[in-house]
Amino acid sequence: MTISRVLTGITTTGTPHLGNYVGAIRPAVAASQDPEVRSYYFLADLHALIKANDPKRVQQSRLEIAASWLALGLDTDNAIFYRQSDVRETTELAWLLSCVCAKGLMNRAHAYKAAVADNEEAGVPDPDRGITMGLFSYPVLMAADILLFNANRVPVGRDQVQHIEMARDMAGRFNHVYKGDYFALPEAVVDERVQTLNGLDGRKMSKSYDNTIPLFVSEKKLLKLVRKIKTNSLEPGEPKDPETCTLFQIFSAFAGETETADMRRRYAEGIGWGEAKNELFEYLNAHLAGPREEYEKLLADPGHIENVMQKGAERARAEAAERLDRLRSAVGLGRFL
Amino acid sequence: MTISRVLTGITTTGTPHLGNYVGAIRPAVAASQDPEVRSYYFLADLHALIKANDPKRVQQSRLEIAASWLALGLDTDNAIFYRQSDVRETTELAWLLSCVCAKGLMNRAHAYKAAVADNEEAGVPDPDRGITMGLFSYPVLMAADILLFNANRVPVGRDQVQHIEMARDMAGRFNHVYKGDYFALPEAVVDERVQTLNGLDGRKMSKSYDNTIPLFVSEKKLLKLVRKIKTNSLEPGEPKDPETCTLFQIFSAFAGETETADMRRRYAEGIGWGEAKNELFEYLNAHLAGPREEYEKLLADPGHIENVMQKGAERARAEAAERLDRLRSAVGLGRFL
Repeated sequence: MTISRVLTGITTTGTPHLGNYVGAIRPAVAASQDPEVRSYYFLADLHALIKANDPKRVQQSRLEIAASWLALGLDTDNAIFYRQSDVRETTELAWLLSCVCAKGLMNRAHAYKAAVADNEEAGVPDPDRGITMGLFSYPVLMAADILLFNANRVPVGRDQVQHIEMARDMAGRFNHVYKGDYFALPEAVVDERVQTLNGLDGRKMSKSYDNTIPLFVSEKKLLKLVRKIKTNSLEPGEPKDPETCTLFQIFSAFAGETETADMRRRYAEGIGWGEAKNELFEYLNAHLAGPREEYEKLLADPGHIENVMQKGAERARAEAAERLDRLRSAVGLGRFL
Repeated sequence: MTISRVLTGITTTGTPHLGNYVGAIRPAVAASQDPEVRSYYFLADLHALIKANDPKRVQQSRLEIAASWLALGLDTDNAIFYRQSDVRETTELAWLLSCVCAKGLMNRAHAYKAAVADNEEAGVPDPDRGITMGLFSYPVLMAADILLFNANRVPVGRDQVQHIEMARDMAGRFNHVYKGDYFALPEAVVDERVQTLNGLDGRKMSKSYDNTIPLFVSEKKLLKLVRKIKTNSLEPGEPKDPETCTLFQIFSAFAGETETADMRRRYAEGIGWGEAKNELFEYLNAHLAGPREEYEKLLADPGHIENVMQKGAERARAEAAERLDRLRSAVGLGRFL
């Protein structure tokens, strides 16, 4: 039986919001506690450089995201939690893979093609304008992230499935060229039931709509944001439809079955929007107060976070170094004796 | 005054021949002894993977090339001599540079364009067929080789000048984006007086013409090869033109002024080809016997070569690690505390 080796990359841009938490962070944190699975969680900070040329923002974002995941209970004793940039073997493996990866494969990558299409639409004569080698070769680095730990399962969104296929392609090609089973072929795991939340305006909660409720805001700010959630004009006492209501949707994403059933009943009974908002706030606040406090404590002690990251990096590198040693020998870059 | 920091990459494919020695190795070995210059010599073994998928050949070639340079007197106390693949910071820096390097720059690289032209000429529908990401992004890795040590002078052949310009471009772009003088802009140093030798058939000595005299062959084999050098049909006693004669050209590349003048006189006096060949052989053999013995000794003791390479790697990495630390902070990938 093959051990399940699950690898999850964490984007280090932006501030996590309730939607990220429910859709991605919460299930990932739960998975990190599974002792039957060998799991890897990494801050994809090398990838972050592709879009972000603002060092302060990159640095702050890495710190906040690390603090968020730790505050939310990522099990760093069981799972290996590290910064991509701490594992130097990643870029080394990316080079080895580059040498077996057809350029044509990258030509077909969605992100690159989308950027070219944007240029063409804008009538830019050079289709590659504004496109860096970082963006273009990104799938090679991502393949290295995965293959460095021989991860066989990679939970991703639909938009990332192509990258996993490319990683499979490189893994297979490397195995073929160097005549050995160096890499397991990774599989994308797409959870079709990913829970999404609506944002303040009722559309899907997303940074790009500017309608998010960040996970770790002050109580006061949280209350203010909850009060801003769009509702309809039904009066208190009129029965309300929970299924089309953002307040209810967020509430039920956090509450247990009994509480959700109870709230559903109160909607039927005509709960007022003010009251519903207060209830949601109380519920969210109770749920988030602990992690929020932990988050603030962590942010105030970056040295501690640094320690956690270093320990994770050590565990990751021990494994990565051993694999790279084997790979170096495989391609003819081994020691002389 | 800026210290001259000179970086020289050594291709690790093939077997060095007399032409390589006279044109490249000998001047580089001499330069390695200059205490006024901070010089770096590295086996470009990551680059070697672009073309070579035969691990045994890659490994053997690295060993032989390392042994050759050491046998020929590379000063590893003064110069830093290392394997590119031992300095992990190289590929890490390559990624940082990728994120400021326009893809369009790579589109214009000679090696890539030549490969595309080959496909087009052959009527291949996909112009990128057979082209790997290694070949395509090679100039980024080369820029990393150079900038990792802030080399300001890079001795190269004409065909490599474009790559140095690209490295300048990336260095300048990085300095601009991250608002600092992180990199000196490297300059290509093209020695127009590079001495070339002709090969067995009178054309330029080159592996691709299959007309080379390898540096380290047995005495017997060396004699046999020298005897194969093409001459004209003039008989002993007839005056001969040294300027158009491969024997004389090779002889004068190794001999001192007096001996060369002496040989020139003997050509005028009508030295026979057999005699001239014997003289050349004796001269080459006397010159190469010492290094050849050293070379064989080194090859018989790969552990010693490994030690030398490890020591070089340590020196290189001490410097590279420090620079990368600074660069990581510059882009926002520094430590949290």
